[in-house]
Amino acid sequence: MQPEGFRDLAHLGSVELYTAVPEETRDFFVDLMAMKEVHREGDSIYVHAWDDYEAYTVKITGREQAGIGRTYLRASSPDALSRRVAAVEAAGLGDGWRDTEYGLGPVFHCRDTDGHELGLYFETKRYVPTEEHRPSLKNQASRFPGRGANVRRLDHLNFLAADVPAASDFMFGTLGARATERIVTDAGETAAIWYSISDKSYDVVYTSDWLGARGRLHHVAFATDTREDILRAADVFLEAGIHIETGPHKHAIQQTFFLYVWEPGGNRIELCNAGARLMLAPDWETITWTQAERAKGQAWGLKTIESFHTHGTPVIT
Amino acid sequence: MQPEGFRDLAHLGSVELYTAVPEETRDFFVDLMAMKEVHREGDSIYVHAWDDYEAYTVKITGREQAGIGRTYLRASSPDALSRRVAAVEAAGLGDGWRDTEYGLGPVFHCRDTDGHELGLYFETKRYVPTEEHRPSLKNQASRFPGRGANVRRLDHLNFLAADVPAASDFMFGTLGARATERIVTDAGETAAIWYSISDKSYDVVYTSDWLGARGRLHHVAFATDTREDILRAADVFLEAGIHIETGPHKHAIQQTFFLYVWEPGGNRIELCNAGARLMLAPDWETITWTQAERAKGQAWGLKTIESFHTHGTPVIT
Amino acid sequence: MQPEGFRDLAHLGSVELYTAVPEETRDFFVDLMAMKEVHREGDSIYVHAWDDYEAYTVKITGREQAGIGRTYLRASSPDALSRRVAAVEAAGLGDGWRDTEYGLGPVFHCRDTDGHELGLYFETKRYVPTEEHRPSLKNQASRFPGRGANVRRLDHLNFLAADVPAASDFMFGTLGARATERIVTDAGETAAIWYSISDKSYDVVYTSDWLGARGRLHHVAFATDTREDILRAADVFLEAGIHIETGPHKHAIQQTFFLYVWEPGGNRIELCNAGARLMLAPDWETITWTQAERAKGQAWGLKTIESFHTHGTPVIT
Amino acid sequence: MQPEGFRDLAHLGSVELYTAVPEETRDFFVDLMAMKEVHREGDSIYVHAWDDYEAYTVKITGREQAGIGRTYLRASSPDALSRRVAAVEAAGLGDGWRDTEYGLGPVFHCRDTDGHELGLYFETKRYVPTEEHRPSLKNQASRFPGRGANVRRLDHLNFLAADVPAASDFMFGTLGARATERIVTDAGETAAIWYSISDKSYDVVYTSDWLGARGRLHHVAFATDTREDILRAADVFLEAGIHIETGPHKHAIQQTFFLYVWEPGGNRIELCNAGARLMLAPDWETITWTQAERAKGQAWGLKTIESFHTHGTPVIT
Repeated sequence: MQPEGFRDLAHLGSVELYTAVPEETRDFFVDLMAMKEVHREGDSIYVHAWDDYEAYTVKITGREQAGIGRTYLRASSPDALSRRVAAVEAAGLGDGWRDTEYGLGPVFHCRDTDGHELGLYFETKRYVPTEEHRPSLKNQASRFPGRGANVRRLDHLNFLAADVPAASDFMFGTLGARATERIVTDAGETAAIWYSISDKSYDVVYTSDWLGARGRLHHVAFATDTREDILRAADVFLEAGIHIETGPHKHAIQQTFFLYVWEPGGNRIELCNAGARLMLAPDWETITWTQAERAKGQAWGLKTIESFHTHGTPVIT
Repeated sequence: MQPEGFRDLAHLGSVELYTAVPEETRDFFVDLMAMKEVHREGDSIYVHAWDDYEAYTVKITGREQAGIGRTYLRASSPDALSRRVAAVEAAGLGDGWRDTEYGLGPVFHCRDTDGHELGLYFETKRYVPTEEHRPSLKNQASRFPGRGANVRRLDHLNFLAADVPAASDFMFGTLGARATERIVTDAGETAAIWYSISDKSYDVVYTSDWLGARGRLHHVAFATDTREDILRAADVFLEAGIHIETGPHKHAIQQTFFLYVWEPGGNRIELCNAGARLMLAPDWETITWTQAERAKGQAWGLKTIESFHTHGTPVIT
Repeated sequence: MQPEGFRDLAHLGSVELYTAVPEETRDFFVDLMAMKEVHREGDSIYVHAWDDYEAYTVKITGREQAGIGRTYLRASSPDALSRRVAAVEAAGLGDGWRDTEYGLGPVFHCRDTDGHELGLYFETKRYVPTEEHRPSLKNQASRFPGRGANVRRLDHLNFLAADVPAASDFMFGTLGARATERIVTDAGETAAIWYSISDKSYDVVYTSDWLGARGRLHHVAFATDTREDILRAADVFLEAGIHIETGPHKHAIQQTFFLYVWEPGGNRIELCNAGARLMLAPDWETITWTQAERAKGQAWGLKTIESFHTHGTPVIT
Repeated sequence: MQPEGFRDLAHLGSVELYTAVPEETRDFFVDLMAMKEVHREGDSIYVHAWDDYEAYTVKITGREQAGIGRTYLRASSPDALSRRVAAVEAAGLGDGWRDTEYGLGPVFHCRDTDGHELGLYFETKRYVPTEEHRPSLKNQASRFPGRGANVRRLDHLNFLAADVPAASDFMFGTLGARATERIVTDAGETAAIWYSISDKSYDVVYTSDWLGARGRLHHVAFATDTREDILRAADVFLEAGIHIETGPHKHAIQQTFFLYVWEPGGNRIELCNAGARLMLAPDWETITWTQAERAKGQAWGLKTIESFHTHGTPVIT
């Protein structure tokens, strides 16, 4: 079902990751994911994926513990932004406007019901390539790197949440996102739910936090152009000594071809490829997977790896 | 720039192709493109691509000459449909409602300024797979065929038009599509222009008809999941004696990986793959390619094939 | 080290598989592996992979239990054949000449030390395509099928053996094969050993049979042109209800990209792709993997599936 | 037909390229082809492809004009080397032994009938990776680079020759290579002929020099693991401003998937992928392509680019 306010948010803009080893995390994104460093400010290093039209893709911030900082969502227009801000304020989750973010105009700070920090904005600074990064084809943000995982852009976020139904109400009712797929346990609880704010089949996912903690991260995903990019990346990660958690394989849910690794700071990073799959139907009915269906594992029979249910960031002991 | 009414149209639904050899054209779509026949009615055969959620993808209609029949566009909601219908009627291009189309609810018949027939609708019949075509994964419309070109869905249409600026005004001002890229000649004329109604970088293209004819077709394109699908398809077409016109190669404009063939009826068919490229920016600025830039050929240096400027359907002598 | 008689055998020719459901096994090879039926004789159905220059690739023979029948090996010349026959006879493993095999000239029947049946030959009948299977390019055996797993040719065999060292002596000392890689347990026993008779990195493998049985089969492997063929095949097998045992993934040993399934008769079938890897060094030193290295699993961390150590054909209870 | 002495030569070892801009040529091989510099000596820079088991793959030598220096061929054994040296000396084409080549033991210098310099050898120095280049999997020569064209190994050479029949007699009668495919003109002349000394379908090609010059180079080719590597490389070359001459496309002859570029020194470099195609038949009959067949262009219809018949190195004016 299409929520009110669907399309007020245009797409995921950028994400802030916390790490205790910011330089190592930066090297992971630059050397292996094929991003480039574009800015440093305070404790943060900003890196940019080659076809992101905005100023940066990931803000890497030094912190004692890994985890996710603020997630930025771009609205479709100034009016659309106003509507969503009003809805968030009505829900009592607003934290006011800021005008100090690198690469962005005024940003409305807020939280989801689980405490994940969000930033809504419309004004943005286009990425302008330096001579070294100027592409040969002008319909592309910057030069094609052709190395490592070679990710084109940010794809989606998977938040761990203590209260998935509450977070779901917020995504649907307040932000205007539509649920495309979900897992419902035999007890009738939503174990995970996939939200789309675009023609992509998902942009934000909520997964039930097994520890009941709030505001944690399951993973951040980046899109590659081909499945072959992901196979090659697996060899690149192997050589670099990066922990390969599971994959490459294909999810049954959403049918994404995936590879999961842990960046040096401990955050789980996914490489994903959806082929030509899009969720074009305006009235797409949420698909529900049962516990039994989920137990079958991934599309080609791989069992879901145990650490998927034990590792989130920040790590809580 | 984002037009008024952007997002009122959700996506391209289906397309009707005329052919003097309907059974051969049907076999092309079924045997080589991996679609399946789902319906016959009058002079028409309906075929369905494996991940199309609607009842059919291409309607093949027997006619003396090849060419394009009606193109169906699905609206985002009943209200959105009403708004676009009102705009089309205001432009004097409406032909009234019909309720007799296979697989569709009420369809508003109309034309673009060049005479290409269009149909706007919201109500649609979901594809329901027979036992033979039921997929293993329920988030997919029908069984993965894994043969030939294995196209997932309809991707875009390229219309030849006598008056590209008029057609452009219609697309932008009446249908609410945004122009993402275009070619402007040294004389200042728009030789071709790419329109998007979705997050895809284009759904409908207008190319100047070198003969000044109206209502003709340059090509219809179908999306594959990978570039490898297109390479494999080239061998499949070679074995089947299908005319391979040009490719596989990569366009500079829109960066699409492509292969062009002529189906047995003579209509030009493209296989295309965009990788993970999407046009997520709500305020994307139209990119303009000059005549000189266009003369450089495709992305990797292949010259544009001469028959691209001499072959359209119906063929006019 | 290069054995005496290396290159006397040119390549693996064909293989006979036993199955209790020959028609279903035949359909697996034809519908999913993209072979074609070329001959029937007695209880056997002969199928041919699209770029096999010989008359057939797999002989499917109805039997009460699954397993492997005779494996055919082509010699490099009549003289080379004589040399290998003499060596086999000297080892007391010869069973004499036959001249009744479909598609082959005189065949010398023999056994390895474990009892697997072999056939050595030089004279062979080239595959001559029917009109329907005639390829467009004359340097290819038959028409490119472009469907399913689309395997090009037979790649290798993995025999289970009660006594791997004895079988190894036979391969090296009698047949002139070179060992390219092997697993040696902490107890100093060879758990598995990979033999090459060509520039491929392996053609025949011996794996220790956990039940101490003789003459059983671990798997038969077929080569695809790309890793993408294997990813697509995984979806094809999923749709067809074929048991996918493990993969797609990449072996650490030999670095093969693999997918294992069980054909309807129960025999384990591998799809494999080696990329551009060849064993060109004439003096390649056998690489030894320790038990600890083996325990790390496959190249990208997948653990070796348990059924690899419990399922062989014939199944013994 | 299998020549006498077939298998006395095991494989192509390495090749020397002349260039007026050795540092730029070096950067092409290191930055774009993913090799690494391993040695410098005199006017030469040695670079190594990631899965070459020998000390180096290409020797880049500064010279006034581009072209090919010495081509090194490894024999299968000391005895095999003696046999080929005796045959070359009998043909009057020997130039005596040298023991000063980097990475090689004693090398027998000689020429083909057209004057291309060759070096035959058996003793070789294995590539020993530095810590930085040590691979994770020990059955691989050095670390997987995962960047640019990412070529695994040298694949083949295409020599231009004034007298192709004479060079062919030398390859077949003296070096023991087998001809797998050839082009014969309507006048009965061999325009090009492909020779194999291994299980690969070709290692050395002779093409008729349109200027009747001697000792020139058409191209040197390097193998990638996948076709996707070649597609990605095309984008990498585009960004780097390298001249892309033709491709990616598929040859009809030998069915190689190809891309041709000119390195900064002007030598034509091919990226090639053969899929799983091997020439396993010991008695493969040479396939002959007529002038008319050749005129059809490449496998998928691309016409052979004009500069294929006008550009060789050294460039002669």
